[in-house]
Amino acid sequence: MTVEVCFSPALYPFYVSEKSKIAVIVDVFRASTTICKALMEGAAAIIPVASLEKAIELKNRGYFVGAERNVEKCDFADAGNSPFDYFSDKVKGKEIVFTTTNGTRAIELAAGKNNVIIGAFCNISAVVDYCKNAGKDVLVVCAGWNNLFSLEDTIFAGLLVTRLTCSEKFQVCGDSAVAASVLWRHAESDVNAFLRQSEHASRLFSHHLEKDFDFCLTQDIVPVVPFYDKFSQKILV
Amino acid sequence: MTVEVCFSPALYPFYVSEKSKIAVIVDVFRASTTICKALMEGAAAIIPVASLEKAIELKNRGYFVGAERNVEKCDFADAGNSPFDYFSDKVKGKEIVFTTTNGTRAIELAAGKNNVIIGAFCNISAVVDYCKNAGKDVLVVCAGWNNLFSLEDTIFAGLLVTRLTCSEKFQVCGDSAVAASVLWRHAESDVNAFLRQSEHASRLFSHHLEKDFDFCLTQDIVPVVPFYDKFSQKILV
Repeated sequence: MTVEVCFSPALYPFYVSEKSKIAVIVDVFRASTTICKALMEGAAAIIPVASLEKAIELKNRGYFVGAERNVEKCDFADAGNSPFDYFSDKVKGKEIVFTTTNGTRAIELAAGKNNVIIGAFCNISAVVDYCKNAGKDVLVVCAGWNNLFSLEDTIFAGLLVTRLTCSEKFQVCGDSAVAASVLWRHAESDVNAFLRQSEHASRLFSHHLEKDFDFCLTQDIVPVVPFYDKFSQKILV
Repeated sequence: MTVEVCFSPALYPFYVSEKSKIAVIVDVFRASTTICKALMEGAAAIIPVASLEKAIELKNRGYFVGAERNVEKCDFADAGNSPFDYFSDKVKGKEIVFTTTNGTRAIELAAGKNNVIIGAFCNISAVVDYCKNAGKDVLVVCAGWNNLFSLEDTIFAGLLVTRLTCSEKFQVCGDSAVAASVLWRHAESDVNAFLRQSEHASRLFSHHLEKDFDFCLTQDIVPVVPFYDKFSQKILV
């Protein structure tokens, strides 16, 4: 099997093929981390929606809504895009409507014939195991920031490429996967220090979200593999 | 001033701003290297055209035509996309119509309000000097391969970022420029060996173009800075 990396949702069309793949959607800061956290805390499902209008409509119909734009929680919502907004006392058993600046768009984009799962540092080993057992090619889709390349999603992609290709089952496919794994090896001795120079770190720090930054870079604290169910259009575990 | 890196023509729309920048178009293998070479050998101008139809029309009107698709010279053309196709005995004083798989598209895309110049390893120091003297922000536009990220164009971008930011005039701007400079530093001790793992190296080697591969990675052997003249729609020096 192969593992490829798509650096931006805007490049996704160039990775579409006849084959069904596992599409690992990653938005390290913070949507994919937060989705994992909410589901581990007992949320029944995450319902990703692209627009604020749709999120407001569902809020008015009684849903618990997580909504963020440009790092900030939207006023109308019950929660924002911080993993610390989603503890079991608030979310257990609930279906959560969720919309964020970048992450939720990438999920809808990659559905279609692929198996879409959600990856982050917090569930990396679970994602590695899932991919190894699935017997399909893997495409990591980085959510980025407004379609631009992001360091944190790429570093995650590089870790996933590195861990999958440790096993003989997987081969690196494409220049972007090679680049991601080189960047991971450069960063791995101190990922937090390396990612402090990322554009998204500046955005988080300007909102005093150092705690979120650290949580989102901690490996294997949320050992679930959320997947997108095309029929219900919900993210489940 | 700032220096940014756009990894694919498909991402170019997300780098458009009100400001006029220097757009350095790079297609290391091989269009930007070959354009530099042809102009150094005395070609009067390069006329980039996007389609083969247009190139054939101009061939029929008497132009010397360089045309390549998927690494191979097109049958109707006088030359392909190899720097070794353009020696002065063939090209001196001529206006050359030129169309390639990736590079010529990127040139047309980035025109508009930017100053478009052509960069490659073969003219890196001349490009560095041009950017330092121009007093404008710099955007490196990687031609890539069919809109996909390419290692060789990114490594060139990383070298340019590294050389410009040695001077206090320039600051790195954006995660992609950080990534490119990390990749350059990883590759710089043996660029040829690093780029042998690139997808485009395989394409060149399968056509026995090892000589082109080496030429395209040699620094400062063609000290010209080709620029795109919007009014005549020609590349000149």
